[in-house]
Order: sequence, then C-alpha cells, then structure tokens
Amino acid sequence: MIYRYAFGQPYDTDAVVLDVPPSEGAVPHLDVAVGEKGQDAVRFSFSMDPEDILFGLGETVRGQNKRGHRYVSWASDIPNHTENLQSLYAAHNLLLVFGKNRLFGLYLDDPGRVTWDLGWTRRDRAEIVSENGDLNLYILEGDSLKAIAREFRQLTGRSYIPPRWAFGYIQSRWGYAGEAEAREVIREHRKRHIPLDGLCLDIDYMDDFKNFTWREKAFPNLQGFLEDARKDHVHLIPIIDAGIRQEEGYAAYDSGKARQAFCTREGGEDFLAAVWPGMCCFPDFMNRDARQWFGEQYRPLLEAGFEGFWNDMNEPALFYTEQSLDRAFATAREQMKHPEDYEGMWFLNAAFNGMANNPEDYRSFWHRMDDGRRVRHDRVHNLYGAFMTRATAEGFRAFDPDRRFLLFSRSSFIGAHRNGGVWMGDNHSWWSHLKLAFHMLPNLNLCGFLFCGCDLGGFGCDTTEDLLERFLQLGVFLPLMRNHSALHTREQEIYRFSIWETMRDTLTVRYALIPYLYSEFVKAAEEDGMLFRPLAFDYPEDARAVHTEDQLMLGGECMIAPVFDQNAAGRYVYLPEDMLLLRFRSAEDYDEIPLEQGDHYVELQLGEFPLFVKRHAFIPLSPGAEYTDALDDAAFRTPGWDAEGAKYELLREDREMLGIEWKKE
Amino acid sequence: MIYRYAFGQPYDTDAVVLDVPPSEGAVPHLDVAVGEKGQDAVRFSFSMDPEDILFGLGETVRGQNKRGHRYVSWASDIPNHTENLQSLYAAHNLLLVFGKNRLFGLYLDDPGRVTWDLGWTRRDRAEIVSENGDLNLYILEGDSLKAIAREFRQLTGRSYIPPRWAFGYIQSRWGYAGEAEAREVIREHRKRHIPLDGLCLDIDYMDDFKNFTWREKAFPNLQGFLEDARKDHVHLIPIIDAGIRQEEGYAAYDSGKARQAFCTREGGEDFLAAVWPGMCCFPDFMNRDARQWFGEQYRPLLEAGFEGFWNDMNEPALFYTEQSLDRAFATAREQMKHPEDYEGMWFLNAAFNGMANNPEDYRSFWHRMDDGRRVRHDRVHNLYGAFMTRATAEGFRAFDPDRRFLLFSRSSFIGAHRNGGVWMGDNHSWWSHLKLAFHMLPNLNLCGFLFCGCDLGGFGCDTTEDLLERFLQLGVFLPLMRNHSALHTREQEIYRFSIWETMRDTLTVRYALIPYLYSEFVKAAEEDGMLFRPLAFDYPEDARAVHTEDQLMLGGECMIAPVFDQNAAGRYVYLPEDMLLLRFRSAEDYDEIPLEQGDHYVELQLGEFPLFVKRHAFIPLSPGAEYTDALDDAAFRTPGWDAEGAKYELLREDREMLGIEWKKE
Repeated sequence: MIYRYAFGQPYDTDAVVLDVPPSEGAVPHLDVAVGEKGQDAVRFSFSMDPEDILFGLGETVRGQNKRGHRYVSWASDIPNHTENLQSLYAAHNLLLVFGKNRLFGLYLDDPGRVTWDLGWTRRDRAEIVSENGDLNLYILEGDSLKAIAREFRQLTGRSYIPPRWAFGYIQSRWGYAGEAEAREVIREHRKRHIPLDGLCLDIDYMDDFKNFTWREKAFPNLQGFLEDARKDHVHLIPIIDAGIRQEEGYAAYDSGKARQAFCTREGGEDFLAAVWPGMCCFPDFMNRDARQWFGEQYRPLLEAGFEGFWNDMNEPALFYTEQSLDRAFATAREQMKHPEDYEGMWFLNAAFNGMANNPEDYRSFWHRMDDGRRVRHDRVHNLYGAFMTRATAEGFRAFDPDRRFLLFSRSSFIGAHRNGGVWMGDNHSWWSHLKLAFHMLPNLNLCGFLFCGCDLGGFGCDTTEDLLERFLQLGVFLPLMRNHSALHTREQEIYRFSIWETMRDTLTVRYALIPYLYSEFVKAAEEDGMLFRPLAFDYPEDARAVHTEDQLMLGGECMIAPVFDQNAAGRYVYLPEDMLLLRFRSAEDYDEIPLEQGDHYVELQLGEFPLFVKRHAFIPLSPGAEYTDALDDAAFRTPGWDAEGAKYELLREDREMLGIEWKKE
Repeated sequence: MIYRYAFGQPYDTDAVVLDVPPSEGAVPHLDVAVGEKGQDAVRFSFSMDPEDILFGLGETVRGQNKRGHRYVSWASDIPNHTENLQSLYAAHNLLLVFGKNRLFGLYLDDPGRVTWDLGWTRRDRAEIVSENGDLNLYILEGDSLKAIAREFRQLTGRSYIPPRWAFGYIQSRWGYAGEAEAREVIREHRKRHIPLDGLCLDIDYMDDFKNFTWREKAFPNLQGFLEDARKDHVHLIPIIDAGIRQEEGYAAYDSGKARQAFCTREGGEDFLAAVWPGMCCFPDFMNRDARQWFGEQYRPLLEAGFEGFWNDMNEPALFYTEQSLDRAFATAREQMKHPEDYEGMWFLNAAFNGMANNPEDYRSFWHRMDDGRRVRHDRVHNLYGAFMTRATAEGFRAFDPDRRFLLFSRSSFIGAHRNGGVWMGDNHSWWSHLKLAFHMLPNLNLCGFLFCGCDLGGFGCDTTEDLLERFLQLGVFLPLMRNHSALHTREQEIYRFSIWETMRDTLTVRYALIPYLYSEFVKAAEEDGMLFRPLAFDYPEDARAVHTEDQLMLGGECMIAPVFDQNAAGRYVYLPEDMLLLRFRSAEDYDEIPLEQGDHYVELQLGEFPLFVKRHAFIPLSPGAEYTDALDDAAFRTPGWDAEGAKYELLREDREMLGIEWKKE
C-alpha cells in the first residue's frame, strides 16, 4: 500500500510514474513537524529499537545498513570517499525500516537538500529534514522487504536495460592519448586472450575538452578507428560532460545559445563556471526544449556508430566561477598584507579549497522548469544529473526507439534508473572501496539502479595487483564491469601486471556467466525486482542472515561473498541454507563443494573466488568467449547440488526463453 | 644471531644499545646494490613466496601483515590516515620475514628516508631503498618470531614502563577552554561514577601556545587546580610542542637562544617556521647541550607536581616558513594575472596546500650532532621526535631518577621506546581507524613501543555513540586508554551520550583488569617480550592462525578480538586452542562460555565485548575502582576453564610478586 502526502509546492521530478492520490489524516509511522520554509522546512522522525535495520539511500558511504550516520542528499563531486562523507554524487531518498515488529518504507520525492540523521545524534532516533519543504512524501507498506521494494519500483517505473554487450569487460583510463594508444590497449588484450567488449574514452578524446568534438591530431580517422574496433568486437564508449564551453563558433555552444538552452543567472545572463574546457555554460536539462537540443547533439555520434556513452560532471561539478575566484583572490590579497598572521593562512587555504562546488554558486543560477516555473538551482539541485541522463535517453529514443544503447551517469536521482545506469564515481585504489562498492549494490538496486558498477582497481591512487584481482573478482558479478583509473596513477590494464594470467582467468568466469547474469538482470528489471539483495530480503526470519553485511543474494539462485582484505587467505561465510560452493580459479577450473546451512571458513587464495548456489538449484555456465558477440547459448554446464529435475529459464537478449535442464556431470 | 653491516657513514641514532661487531662477507637473505649517495644509495631486495608474511614497520597504515604496499619511513604530520598513505608520524625500520621455509629480520638503523616496496610493484618481490646510504643494517636470525623479537629488543634496549596510574582512563580534548571547563569534565565523571585517572591539557592551556607557559586568564590558580585534581585522584597531563616561539622576553626562547640550543640555517642564522605559536625556533635535540636545556624546562612543572606529559608536533610539523609562504604568494600573484587560466588554478591550490612540511624546508636547517658533525636536517629527519622524547626523559631523570613519569610522543624512532610511549596521532572518528589502531599494536610492540594507544572515539571528524563504545572496548586493553578529540568536532566525553551508562560499564572492566594488564605489561618490558602479538607468533604451525589479522594474543593468557564494524551484532573468531570466552557487559556482568579450538561466531551486542582466556589458565579480575589509587590487589575473581592448580604471579607496581591461585566460583 502506498500513501502520498504533499508538503509545500512539490516539483515534477520525473521520479514517480504512478498517480497516487493524496492521503488524508496523519502520516503513519512518522512524527512530522512543519517549520519555516527554506530552513529545515519539514522534519520527519521516528524512534528505533536496538535491532532495527535501515536499508536504502542508494549511492552513499558506509554499510548495507545505513544506521548510525548522518547523510545529506546533495549531489557532490567529492573524490575522497572516506566514511565521514555525508554526500556522494547522487541523491536517492528512499529508506526502508525493518525491525522485529515493523516494516515500512518512506520516499521523499524532494529535489532539494535532505538531511538524514539515522541514529547519529542518538542511536535510537532517526530525523529526516527537508530544507525546502516542497515535496511529496510516500509511505510504503507491504508484507516483506521484497514486496515493498517491488511496490517502490511500480511507483517509480521499470529499470533501464542495456544491450547485452555492455555486460562484457570494459577497459578505461583517463589519459589514453589518442587512437594509437587506444589501438594498443585493444591489441594487448586480444593478443593475450584477455576478454574485452568495450573501451571507454575519457575527456582526452575531445578537442580542448569540448563535448561532441574530437581532437583531430589524436584521432585522425575516428570513423576508421571506430569501424576497426567494431570489427575487433570492441565498442568505443565516449564520455560526455555536462558543461558546454562558451566559445563562439563552437557548434554545440552556438546552437545551445540560439535555442536558449543554457541556465541563466537571476538577471537572465548566462551562468558561467569553469570545468575541464574552461568557462562553460550549463544546459538547462530541466527544460524540455533544452533537453531536446542536448539529445540531438548525440545524433552525429550515433550515426557514426557509437552505441554507448557515459555522462560525467553532472552534479554539476563547478571548479569555480568568476565570483568564487574573486572571493578567493580577495582573501589572498588581504592575507598577503599580513604574512605574520599565521592563523589567517588557514583561511587562505580554505578560500582556494572552497572555490569548487560552493553553495553560493549553486544559489546563483536558475532553471526554466517544464511547468513554466523559474526555479533557483539549489531548490532542484539533485535533479541535474538525472535530467541530463533523461535528455540523452530521449535523444537515443528519437534516433532509434527500438535499439538499446549503453548509458551510465555519475550523478543520478531516482527516476533516472529508467533511462540509464550509474557508476559509483571517483573511488580510490583502496581495499575499503572494494567493500564500499559492495555495500552500495543492494541499496542502488533498491532505488531502481540495476545497471551499476564501480571503477575496478580504483580510480584515484595507485593500485596493486592483488587489489585489482580482488576487484575483478567482485566485477565478475557487476552488471557494469569496468576497469578505470585516473591520470597520473599507476597504469592498471590487466596486461601490465605480473599476475595478468590470473586476472584473465578471472575474466573467463565473467564470460561464462554473462548469459545467466544478463538473464537474471532482465528478469529483475521486468519483474520490478533486485539483482542484488541483502540477505534480510530473502531470509527475514533468520537473525544471523539479517545482520550479515558482507554477503549478498544474487539473482534467483546465488549468493556472493567476495574477499575484501589484503593478504587474506580466505573468509568466513554464513549460509542461510544449504549451498554449493563454486570456488573459481577460471571458467574451466573450479571446485564444487557442498556446504550445509551454517558458518564456514572458506579458503580463497589470491586467484580464487566463491559463488554459492542454492541446493536443488543450478546455474547455467556457458563455454565463454573473448567477447560477447561470440557467446554461444548452448553447451551449458550446470553446476548444482541435488538439482535433479531443476530447470532454468534463460532469457536471451532476443527475448526468447531457453529452457535449460540440470545434467549431472 | 645478529649480524651488522655498515654502509656509508652511519649516524649515532641512539637506537641500538648492543655493540655488534661488523660482519664479514655477503649480507645473508638479501640482494644488495650500492648506488650513488643521496639518490637511492643502497637497495636491499628479496623474493617472496606466495605465503610469506611480513611483520614490522611499527606505526604505519594497513594490516598486521605489511605485504602489498609501498611505505616510506619519513615522519610526517598528515592527518588523513587513508590506506594509500605511505608515511605516518614515526619511522620504525624493522621488518620480520616469516615464510614456510624461512625466517629472518632486518633492521635499518638509518635516520633518513627509507622506501619499502613490499610487494607493491610485484607481489613476489620486496625492495628496500635507503636514500642516503649512511646506515647500519642488522640481520636477525632465530628459531621463532618470538625469539627474533626478543633478540631485537636486546639489541635496542628495554621498553619504557610508565607509572601504573597511566593505565587509568584519561580524558582529553583540544579545546578545553580553561580551569572551569576542566573542573566540570572531572566533576561530570565523578558524579556519574565514570572511572577517571587523567585529564590531558591540549595547547589551549598555554599562553599564546608557548611551551612551558600558562594562560593566566584561563588558569588563574594553576597550582590550586592541580592540587584539587590530585585530591580527586586525577592527574593533569599537559602537552608540550617541539617549536619555541621566537619572542624576546619569553623565558624559554631567551634561555634557548643563550644556550645556542636552536637549529640553524646553513649560514648560522636561526631556522624559523610557523607552528601554533607563530614563528618558532626548533630545539636542536640532536645536541647534548640543547637536550639538557630542553629537559630543564620541564623542571618547574615537575616541581609543581605534574607527573605526565605528551610531546607533540615533533616530526617536526612546519605549517610554513617565510620561504615557502613567499613561493606560494608568488604563484598566487602570477595566477591572479590570468584568471582565465583555469588549469593554473590547480597549481595555485597546490601551492598553498604544499606549504606545510615541504621537502625544501626540511633541507634548509642543520643540526650539531653529539659527535660534532654538522648535519642537514633531512639526513636525520626521522630522529627529531625521538630525540625530543630523549631530552624530556633525560630531564625527568635529572629531576628524580627513581620516579616513573608518564610520557608519550607523536613522532618516534626506534630507541625512543626506552624513554616513553607513543600515541598513534591524529586519527579520525572512522570505523576503519578502530581497525587500523588494532593492526598497529603488535607492530609497535615489535619495535619496542609497548606503551601505546590511539585517540579513542577518533580525533578528527564527528564520532557516534556506537563508534565510541566500540573504541572503548578496544581501549580496555590498550596500555594508554585515552579519549581525545579535536576542536570543532562533536564533543565526545562519555557523559555526553545517551548510552553513557553502557560506556561506564565498559570502563569498569578496564579497572578490574588494570592489575593484570600492568603486570603483563611490566613482564613484557622486563623480559623483552610483546604485550600484543599476532597469532603467528604463538601458533606458527597453525596455517589458519598465521593468516588471522583481526585477533591478537594479549599477555600470557589471553586473546582479544574486537568488533570493528558498525551495526554488527557479533563477529567470527578463530580459536587456535580451547579458550574460555568472557563476554563482558561490565566487570560484574559477564558470560563465561567455554569454546573449543576452531571457528566460532560470537554474538556481541553493542554493549558487549569478548576476552578469550586459554584453557587451563585464568586471569585475575580485581574488584575495580573509579581510579587507580583505589585499586585493591586483593579479592580477585579468577575466571578460567579447567584451571585447577593454575597460579598467576601478579607483578605489582611496588615490584612485589603476588601469587594468585585459581578458585572455582
């Protein structure tokens, strides 16, 4: 059952697809306090029992269970994802409360700043504050966590489904200098039989970082390169940023300007801020005409044959504005007069560090919403990336409504899950970020984002070969399996490491699993379900299972439990029921070990990783391939334990169902 | 067996107390390459088997096992202890290599920069590089990890032993405004019967942050306050920083200047850098006369009755020098001419961020060593904090050679372990830092630092009540049990939280354990042993034990295994032998659960924590107290399993042995 309560003047956020009539009377489950507008305008709170668990908030720091921290829904480009952060790139305002005696969900359809004190001030109290107070609050009730998750998806619409090749392994790096280097990366993979389906192009490909342009010198024959790559079964996936450089004669700028497609300051002049290309205008994605214009910009690339894109810097990230730069310079000038004032030096530092993404800049530009309202950016800040995704997806549909394109974005808001996937932004080569990515998976799924992944190996900082290998072992199960790293960090293509054969072997398991994973993914999307689920969703009565944070249910048959610690030789696993342990070294080389319900320590050397399959079920394991084009939906092996009579319905990309029966090996 | 190999012209670092004659022939275990001086002058390397484990390096990031990262021995004031860091505040150049077929230790007595690539570039290779090449290399051989650890302590001397009251609970915060607030903190503890033995005073107590001064307004009657606190059984523990403000008329500056006790630039003029008090001179702790002068500065405080101090900022931390400030200003001036140059803005940011602790400043001042050599700071950088500790300890001994004083330092070098303890510096209120502190414990012990602890609750960022409670549960076993936090963070005295009674109950366990912990501590010091040991030290043949990173042996009878994860309801524990689980809620309220060798999941709600006692042994549990003065070495309870006939020799502070026999309850 879904209840809706409107506060203030809610915005059309595109998050909800069901028309839920407003409910009467008091809001169930929550204490509600309405205050002054624009200043903690509405406060929702509830008490918690010691054993209550909170799921949700999608892309955030910390564990599967969100209890014990203070989160802020405010899309932010902050690259250091330490556990004290309150915001990442997205804003996903869904929370499920799961306790001994209660179960409900709450969703704030609110595009402004929302603060979630979930047992931070007091462990037994949750307080959720909408700064603006213009929102729809939805209360979700149901018999189970799964039922509420499904109900929420029905409210917000079916999840995006990418083409199957997007489940292939994708190599990426900020810093590929041009076609020659890109060709070499592809060649090194093929030469060593390291599977590969995609190559991301980061901002390096652009002419002066301008969207929809190409650096001629680095890519003298783009079309030829694209075609060669496709012959090699590799998809090129260019990046597109939010900002459009202010430069007359640059087609995207000129056409956007002519279409009045850019955000403006209060007085109507263009809002400008520095990002990679220098001073930029920002498309007003809140506006239908602007979205249409932006979507059209992809057309030449689609016509050239590109089938996938990633949208970046769309919180939007602002390095600085003329105004924030002036403020910092003024501080510097003042400070330079008093070199003896050592305490002032902290302010100086803070002045420059604080230029980027500052609240004042976010309050200084305006949108023309679809409903005609002119709205200051900070009121609807969290929609920006989501509406960029929407613009892109609308452009795809206008180009070819029947084709699936790959699209994933850094910033997102619920609703964008219908148009594309997400990656988890600029993580680091940290072991703790391997676990952080894992913890985000079920909460992202809960919020509708089924197609997601993290930068395998870590984006910032230098990776090590063991960390990359353990990242890849998680990556085997992620819908988006991308190895990505930053300029000036250690190069982390698989073939650069002494244990590259171990890594290649790990990828063979991915390709053997793609038919199954894609099938489970599409089923989850079409049935409004989740691909990754906390154990609590499947075993709500099992007290041990509900508190297990380092394992996840995957699809209908499986459980995953990666190794998260450097130098570990194995890990503990709790089995909520009997399962078959598949201990993989490669698609050809794995142990099958039946394990009974309960606790187990599983030995897992560096090249080994586990997949658990429920007793009486099995998974179809394909013979694999070096790219998805060559995957054959036949000759499946069917590892399973006591799976006599079991059958798996494989949903293929062409929508055909293929019935697979268990065979004893 | 200890072998010594000299390279270049080694310095007298005060690290080693044994006179080991130089060895002839090739260095065993290592490949050695000698290059150019001052530029990766000496390189030691060795190959590693997949199962080899590396212990050592004392205070560093990452796990108990140091394999898989690149560390740099370079004492650094970096407050964000993320896992990519290469340096913390100390430099502890000891490494133990423990594999199936080999076992040895290596110690580089080298006060300059040393880089440790321990399987970072390649997982199967370690490379250790001394930048300067002036060092003694010691190779340690023995029958066991324990034997090598003992051998190393014999080489470097007996560990510092503090007075027993220093094992009491200590409250601290940067920001206590003065006597009134300090008295209130004490009162709030006593009122609620929260045990307390010490109160640290941070830089706030000083007059303009000047060492050995007091802010009269805040502490109008220091002597009276000190005496009242002692009547209340609370020890006041002031902070002392490394830098001495350049200010004529300020006694410490005038006397230091007169004694030529400060470091100089190459031409002989004072080296100046900004720290808390503004522009400071830096005592030349490498010089005997300067140390004596510095030690004398403590005398008035000792005469006033202070019995404990903490030495800080002694890497030394440098906020900036006139020179580094000029460089940053020059960058700013240049950049301000080109506001359109957005890439230049990154340099501008970097210029200000890079002013602190920069290599150029560390190359611009000089020491007069005890042997008469004049040496540039960077050559001996890592000694600075250790020699400050030495100066302080020498001052204590000159004042009263028979008394134990409390002393702990932020920066350290092996050798300083004879003169004082350490805390782990400016950690954060992060769950990952709870685990990081745990991982440092055995490695610090290995390097001689038995008296150590971390800032419980976390120094930087805001704590939560569950995090503080779990930190306290670890703190129960730490020699230094201090709750410390930074200015502008959430106040984290126990009584400020809704679950303060749970925290107080946790402290009761500490006080019940103090007689045992102090006894085990003193035995470890006197027998050149370790209080905290990786399981590999006690169970080298047990393959599971040697890879266990989240448990530690404690003293002769115990094992500890804290909860490290937020919202956890328990944890797994591997028992290398039969043990009795004591699941504590308070000193009066605990479960005794015999557990057999093997794997166990132990339920541990927020207020619960475990201590494991070996079968056939027991621990003496005193009735506790609210301060150590009131601890009574009688009426011990003796929890143990099958401990018939077992006896524990309790070493008391007065050096008397008290025999305690097991009694069935």
